Amino acid sequence: MDQLEPFAEIAHQAIVFTEGMALDCGRSLHSLTVAYRTYGRLDADRRNAILICHALTGDQYVAETHPLTGRAGWWSTLVGPGLPIDTDRFFVICANVLGGCMGSTGPRSPHDDKPGEPWGHEFPPVTIRDMVRAQKMLVEHLGIDQLFAVIGGSMGGMQVLEWAATYPEAVFAALPIATAAHHSAQNIAFNEVGRQAIFADPDWCGGEYWRAGAIPARGLAVARMVAHITYLSEAALTRKFGRRLRDATSLTLLGDKFEVESYLQYQGSAFVRRFDANSYLSITRAMDFFDIAAEHGGDLFRAFQGSRTRFCLVSFSSDWLFPTTASREVGNALIRGAANVSFVEIMSDKGHDAFLLDEPDFHRTIAGFLAGCAEHRGLAPRERA
Amino acid sequence: MDQLEPFAEIAHQAIVFTEGMALDCGRSLHSLTVAYRTYGRLDADRRNAILICHALTGDQYVAETHPLTGRAGWWSTLVGPGLPIDTDRFFVICANVLGGCMGSTGPRSPHDDKPGEPWGHEFPPVTIRDMVRAQKMLVEHLGIDQLFAVIGGSMGGMQVLEWAATYPEAVFAALPIATAAHHSAQNIAFNEVGRQAIFADPDWCGGEYWRAGAIPARGLAVARMVAHITYLSEAALTRKFGRRLRDATSLTLLGDKFEVESYLQYQGSAFVRRFDANSYLSITRAMDFFDIAAEHGGDLFRAFQGSRTRFCLVSFSSDWLFPTTASREVGNALIRGAANVSFVEIMSDKGHDAFLLDEPDFHRTIAGFLAGCAEHRGLAPRERA
Repeated sequence: MDQLEPFAEIAHQAIVFTEGMALDCGRSLHSLTVAYRTYGRLDADRRNAILICHALTGDQYVAETHPLTGRAGWWSTLVGPGLPIDTDRFFVICANVLGGCMGSTGPRSPHDDKPGEPWGHEFPPVTIRDMVRAQKMLVEHLGIDQLFAVIGGSMGGMQVLEWAATYPEAVFAALPIATAAHHSAQNIAFNEVGRQAIFADPDWCGGEYWRAGAIPARGLAVARMVAHITYLSEAALTRKFGRRLRDATSLTLLGDKFEVESYLQYQGSAFVRRFDANSYLSITRAMDFFDIAAEHGGDLFRAFQGSRTRFCLVSFSSDWLFPTTASREVGNALIRGAANVSFVEIMSDKGHDAFLLDEPDFHRTIAGFLAGCAEHRGLAPRERA
Repeated sequence: MDQLEPFAEIAHQAIVFTEGMALDCGRSLHSLTVAYRTYGRLDADRRNAILICHALTGDQYVAETHPLTGRAGWWSTLVGPGLPIDTDRFFVICANVLGGCMGSTGPRSPHDDKPGEPWGHEFPPVTIRDMVRAQKMLVEHLGIDQLFAVIGGSMGGMQVLEWAATYPEAVFAALPIATAAHHSAQNIAFNEVGRQAIFADPDWCGGEYWRAGAIPARGLAVARMVAHITYLSEAALTRKFGRRLRDATSLTLLGDKFEVESYLQYQGSAFVRRFDANSYLSITRAMDFFDIAAEHGGDLFRAFQGSRTRFCLVSFSSDWLFPTTASREVGNALIRGAANVSFVEIMSDKGHDAFLLDEPDFHRTIAGFLAGCAEHRGLAPRERA
């Protein structure tokens, strides 16, 4: 891919913790930066804060124009004034995950031990729990003892589960959406395809592509392509593209022929201009190692035993990456742990992607559950202008 | 991948048709070579011949040690003396597909217009119907007017359907297994990931890797990896690999960690020593363009209307690449066309791969259906030594 724009360097709102942070792997970061965005206003008693956790390729720009792509925030249909996650009522926080590439400490951050160089592929391996610990530092910095809610889909949902397991007293309500308590063998395998595609790119340069001023764009695009397929149901893929040939009259061995192919190629190439390859490796590894039961003696229910958090689990019927059975496994563990749990399977043929889309039943579920929790917590009703 | 063995040049049993062949794309091959193997003995009346059609990465070595890998034939549990496809009774033929790389005309064959060079990526695009036409020439060469049966799984099943639609009088019984009348959007998308991975490999050399003495091994391995995942059910992947960490004590960003990953890496790298990248592109394209209804005015039942062939459709319950619904679509079209059709869904949790495995119910189905057809055709019972 020639004439590829370099990865844009832009300033992100962030807090720096100079005390650093200890990681699950046993190593420590000398300094920790957490880039984040907030929407709405924190009440005087600091009880109306909602933390949103983003997914693999998401970031903190949840409800505003993205500074790199110029597109609307990834959950802008769900988060905003009068929307299900109502910023007239709630103070919404979203932080770029540890290991990310939008301002939080990650592979693009300065190396702790090599002045003038980024971490690159030497960035220490991080876990979902490490990501949550970094978010906890941000939340404490903002003076919030207990979040009203923690909400996230996919890898964001993994973080929600980890929040509830690690800091049960700090989470009043938890909404893990389209997620699982661990990555399946299939999920890991698809992630591995993506990683191998990155390693196969000559511009990968053994992980030191930044030194060569290169981007392993082709490998990263292939990784994004395979992930994207797993986000869509067969019905959604067929509806979007079907088998409309783009140029059926001239069969050739090379060249893109099916619409689905050119779309995936476009998606892949747009992606490489906003996502760092080492971050992709770092975050997919964190997802693959996620196993909340293993962190609690191998039994999932122990992770949530005695929890007073109110849970709302959401799955989508056509999601084959994080299927309903995976949410049900979490639900059963919560029930065994005597937790307060609701479980909703949304009928949708849009696949895993549905959690990012304007699905009315899903949005009603979020709004209704939050309204009930707000009443239970005694939050003031929504302010009217 | 250093020290990669070059693609082995070995002699294959083959027939050369010097008259060449016209292709669906409008071009013609000046000469056509069909490499094939046979097992058993052709009866004097030439009525006991079974043609087996191989899948994407299969070849003609169906029931004997493979000359390159040294492994047993890919259907050696199904085809042989006393086995469901009984070579004591039937004369079994299997040909390497047009576009393949095990001796039949394909991208590794001499270029028609460039002396001393192989076709490479300039090999004309071929269709499943072209593959079947080449097989028909072989079958006629062997003096067989009507095959007793045509059998194949996956892309082999596509060829079976094409045989029955194009040469209905030449097929007494047809067994399309774990297949579909067209490739789905998801199937195409996964194939496209594989192709893009090949294109992203620096050793791809724009398709002229043979000129550089190179093999785009990393891209081909990634392509094989993603395909392999689609062949397995989640249950099969989990049973084989689960989440057993290979080296859980030392988390690092690089390196293979999960067993599923190292297995897939092994599978991918073994594959590149026996499969040509341009063949992979040629054959996956043929699969992606396969749409038997489109060849018959857009209505699938017209493809088989009035057919006297006896059909036995087989699907596997956990196959998500060629699901039971795809076989049922074919079955419904056959019924609308008043064809003689049996349809069996085999309960299996092994995914698409099940058609290659020793699944007792599947093998009983094949044996039983063939026995019934043999009786109907008046074939002599199995010879006893």
